[in-house]
This record gives sequence, structure tokens and C-alpha cells, in this order.
Amino acid sequence: MAEPKQERAVKTRETILYAAAEIFDECGYSGASISKIMNRAQVTQGGMYFHFKSKRSLAQAVLAHQQEFVHFSVETAGLQKLIDLTFFLARELQNNVLFRASVRLAVEQGEFGARDDTAYQEWVNEFHALLREARNQGELLADVDEAEFANVLVGAYSGIQVFSNVSSERVDLPERLVSMWRYLLPAVATPQARAKFSFPVDPQRLAA
Amino acid sequence: MAEPKQERAVKTRETILYAAAEIFDECGYSGASISKIMNRAQVTQGGMYFHFKSKRSLAQAVLAHQQEFVHFSVETAGLQKLIDLTFFLARELQNNVLFRASVRLAVEQGEFGARDDTAYQEWVNEFHALLREARNQGELLADVDEAEFANVLVGAYSGIQVFSNVSSERVDLPERLVSMWRYLLPAVATPQARAKFSFPVDPQRLAA
Repeated sequence: MAEPKQERAVKTRETILYAAAEIFDECGYSGASISKIMNRAQVTQGGMYFHFKSKRSLAQAVLAHQQEFVHFSVETAGLQKLIDLTFFLARELQNNVLFRASVRLAVEQGEFGARDDTAYQEWVNEFHALLREARNQGELLADVDEAEFANVLVGAYSGIQVFSNVSSERVDLPERLVSMWRYLLPAVATPQARAKFSFPVDPQRLAA
Repeated sequence: MAEPKQERAVKTRETILYAAAEIFDECGYSGASISKIMNRAQVTQGGMYFHFKSKRSLAQAVLAHQQEFVHFSVETAGLQKLIDLTFFLARELQNNVLFRASVRLAVEQGEFGARDDTAYQEWVNEFHALLREARNQGELLADVDEAEFANVLVGAYSGIQVFSNVSSERVDLPERLVSMWRYLLPAVATPQARAKFSFPVDPQRLAA
């Protein structure tokens, strides 16, 4: 039996999005082109224009679905889960081209004339929820403002991964995250909570 | 008396560099062109090619001289000087087009195929020197690794200014820096030192 039409369309869209992510990741927004992406995806012009009318709309789709490109699931909760999430995202930046391209477009969005902080705000919301959980578990120091710290963490993480990318193509990102947490946790977590957190024993393992 | 030839050449070079910074700041690397920059600088093709052969060499000149574009001079020392420097750089990002363009090129350098962390490393060195001064003044906690913290701070600052740019065109950057220091200082400075630091009373004033 032939594949239902709708299912085929969904698959084609995914194929195009993946090819677009590869090209944006390799060439940046300006170096990418619809024809390069069509070639990579092995779709016809008709197939492409059914889903995406322009390079810009492709970039916006890759940028807009940043959180859907990663699937984080752990048993931990509160601050430990937030710590685990930062290391999980480091591995995704190393290995997941959809997520990596989306982050590149979020950082370099000036290049396509966008000024849209949605991708940043979604991570602020995600981090904020985990910090509220940490508050309920009694892990946070009294004067921590969860929303304020979520903003600091998203900004700091964004820059640390850019610096790591320029320095080492993100091989040293897990080590840089260990350093980041070392200088943030004393202002955030109670001494009792800090005594319990676990970090990747050998952060280099995450790069493998 | 006619201006000496060499002096004129230096001025022309500065004029071109300033025009290039304006164009890179407005259009990014990919949206910029030699002819836009020639127009803005009001120089002839001959004048341009005497100094710069390509858009890429112009971008590299703007990127390479990041630290020369800012002139920081205060009476403070050690950690207070480092804090003052971060707020000074926020004001420069708001008002100094040469510095702003240089930072944009450093963050978006993938767009012109560079992978050069010199601009980041120079700030690491600058921050590291101030942290050594802070160590000599007895301001740092025993387990602070000055070089490690300088790296964390450069990465965190880079990302916080990108986030602030996307959110508010950097109007809220001074406030975001107050938050950043709030969550970093407890891991870095002795309680005695922390009691003495001063921050801009109203960070919004810096945006004026």
C-alpha cells in the first residue's frame, strides 16, 4: 500500500529541515542557499516550495524549534537536573546538527535581520522551572531570585559555548561548564545541597 | 604647508576602518561590501586598495584591534577595577561603533570563515592580570583559580551581551551585569572585600 500523502509530506519536511540544519551549520546563514539545501535533501523544487518559500523561512524554522531538537530525560530533579541539563546540552551541541545549527542561528541572527529572543526566553523558562523545583526542595539560598538567575545562566551558557566553539570546536565545553558551575553554585545552593551534587567524573568523556 | 604624506595615509586608514565598523555594525559581515564601505568613507578605489585589499582583510583589522578601540582608565584596582571594566565595556558596546562592530565580528566570525579566539584570549589576559592584582590585595578566596575564573568571566560576559542585544539592543546590559556579579562574587571574593565593592547606583544611568 502506498504511504499516505500526509505522512510522506511530514517526512519530506523533516528531510528538508535536517538538510537545512547541516548547511546552516557548515556555511552559516549567508553562505547557505536554497539550491545547496535542495541538493543535500535530494528534493525537487516543487517539494521544497511546498514546505518552505525561502532561505529565511527555513532559518526561522530551524531557529524556532530549538527545544524540539533535544530530548532530555533524567531521573534527577531540581538543581541536579539543571546541572545535568547543561552537560546534556553540551553533548547535543557536539553531536546534534539540528540543535547546533539552531544555536548558531540564534547567536548570529543579525546575519538574517532577525532580532528575536524567543529561543533564549524558552531556555530561561525551562531553567526557571527547574529552579522553582530546587526552591521547593530547599536547595536554594534564601536570597536567590530564580528568574534573575535563570537569565544569568542562559546568557553565561550561550557565551561559554561560543568561546568554546571558537577555541576548540566545543571539545572543551564540558570542562568549561565544570568551571562555570564552580563559580556560580556558592551564590545559589545551600552548603548541604552543594555537598551532594555530582558532575561528570571525567568531563572529557562527554566529548567522546 | 601640505600635510606629510604618511600622516595623511594614517588618517585615511582610520577613516576607512571607522566606515567599515559602521557598515559591519549595521549589516554584519555578509551584508557589508567594499563599495558600501568606500562610499561611507568617501575614499577612492585607489585609496581603499592602498590600505585594504578585501572585505575580509577589513573585517580582520576591525576584529584584531578590539582592545585598541577602548581606553579604560580608572583610579580603582583589583576586583573593583575588574567590576568597573565590565560596566565600562557595556557603555562602550552601547556607544562605540568600532568596539561594537569588533565584538559582533568576534561572535559571528563563522560568517567569514574565521576561527580565531585571539579577541577572547586578550580579554582573558586582561581580566587575569586584574585578578592577580586582586589576589595580591587579599581580595580573593583561597580556592579561586585566577586563570580559570578569567575564562569563565569572558565567556559569560560574551553571552550576556549577546542576549541583551537580542532582547533590548543592550539597554538592559548594565542591569544584567549587576545580576551576573551577584551570582559570581560569592565564589570569588572574601566577605570583607565584597562589603566594599561599589556598583553603578542606577545601572540605567549608564545607558544614557
